[in-house]
Amino acid sequence: MTRIDAQLAFLTEACKLKSTLRATTLCDGSRRENSGEHSWHIALYAMVMAEHANRPINIDRVIKMLLIHDLVEIDAGDNPIHGNHDTDAMRAVELAAARRIFGMLPDDQARDFHALWDEFEAAESDDAIFAKSLDRVQPVVANLETGGGTWPQYNVTADQLQTRVGVKVERGAPAIWDALKARIDAWFSNASPSSE
Amino acid sequence: MTRIDAQLAFLTEACKLKSTLRATTLCDGSRRENSGEHSWHIALYAMVMAEHANRPINIDRVIKMLLIHDLVEIDAGDNPIHGNHDTDAMRAVELAAARRIFGMLPDDQARDFHALWDEFEAAESDDAIFAKSLDRVQPVVANLETGGGTWPQYNVTADQLQTRVGVKVERGAPAIWDALKARIDAWFSNASPSSE
Repeated sequence: MTRIDAQLAFLTEACKLKSTLRATTLCDGSRRENSGEHSWHIALYAMVMAEHANRPINIDRVIKMLLIHDLVEIDAGDNPIHGNHDTDAMRAVELAAARRIFGMLPDDQARDFHALWDEFEAAESDDAIFAKSLDRVQPVVANLETGGGTWPQYNVTADQLQTRVGVKVERGAPAIWDALKARIDAWFSNASPSSE
Repeated sequence: MTRIDAQLAFLTEACKLKSTLRATTLCDGSRRENSGEHSWHIALYAMVMAEHANRPINIDRVIKMLLIHDLVEIDAGDNPIHGNHDTDAMRAVELAAARRIFGMLPDDQARDFHALWDEFEAAESDDAIFAKSLDRVQPVVANLETGGGTWPQYNVTADQLQTRVGVKVERGAPAIWDALKARIDAWFSNASPSSE
């Protein structure tokens, strides 16, 4: 197989990400979002929101990271943040998926893509921390647009949202979380008057 | 409205691109592709295929161009390359859409995004020519994966494919067209034995 044939085979395999469904819906609630269109949307988030990163980032690396961050879901599926998972088992499945899927590329690209995915997953570099912030915040916006979206279904509380999502968004893009906080607080105080 | 609120409103508006359907299907033929997931897919094409540009390009600009290239379709819809359109009328609708949609952003970003979209549409810079090559070639791969895909429906001939698509792909990425040529020729010679 030539180099370009391997690249085309990888890109055709990548098409399957459009059939991986996420918990979150589109902003109009019409259907569940897939991981391909989600990847586009958060790459666009990065392009627009770069100035709100709280540390210096390389926005071009962030965008590339976001374009490939969910490819492992072709094999591993999406694991909603508010669901229950065996984290170690999920990690093993995703790692095997990364080896298989990135392994379809020519060796040099396979290594580069896998390393970029590892960096995203580790969430330690400034680029990865900002990328993770965007990955976490986009479903929140979709939920706010759709009357709470998946929050009631997963019985999410305001505290859980802060712990599971808010803390991670604040690590890389606190200004975005601040901008959403009033809308989030309003939704949860309307949804759960008994908790006041 | 604060700067960040305007950016969030733009990003929520952008979500509608996931509901714009294209003529082409997914690579498994299961359903029509939408313009959001298409935008992700060709940004990934750019990331993988950058080395096949026939002139020096800035791949980071190409990726950004591809992320925003179809946003006007939120208002204007998708216009299949093999369909019949009033080109001038379509251009006017798309221009109004660009003003409205990019105009939701803060002024500096609105200008930058609109300029990047103009550059893509003009298809004169090396970055835009390469971006257009990828935009044209991805549906060809999907059609080849699905037994001709939309070609029979639009009665596309081998000559039309070469004129409408091949020439444009060859302008920016001749190596990719070369790699597909044998598969394309095989499909058309099987589909139209009477034309031989």
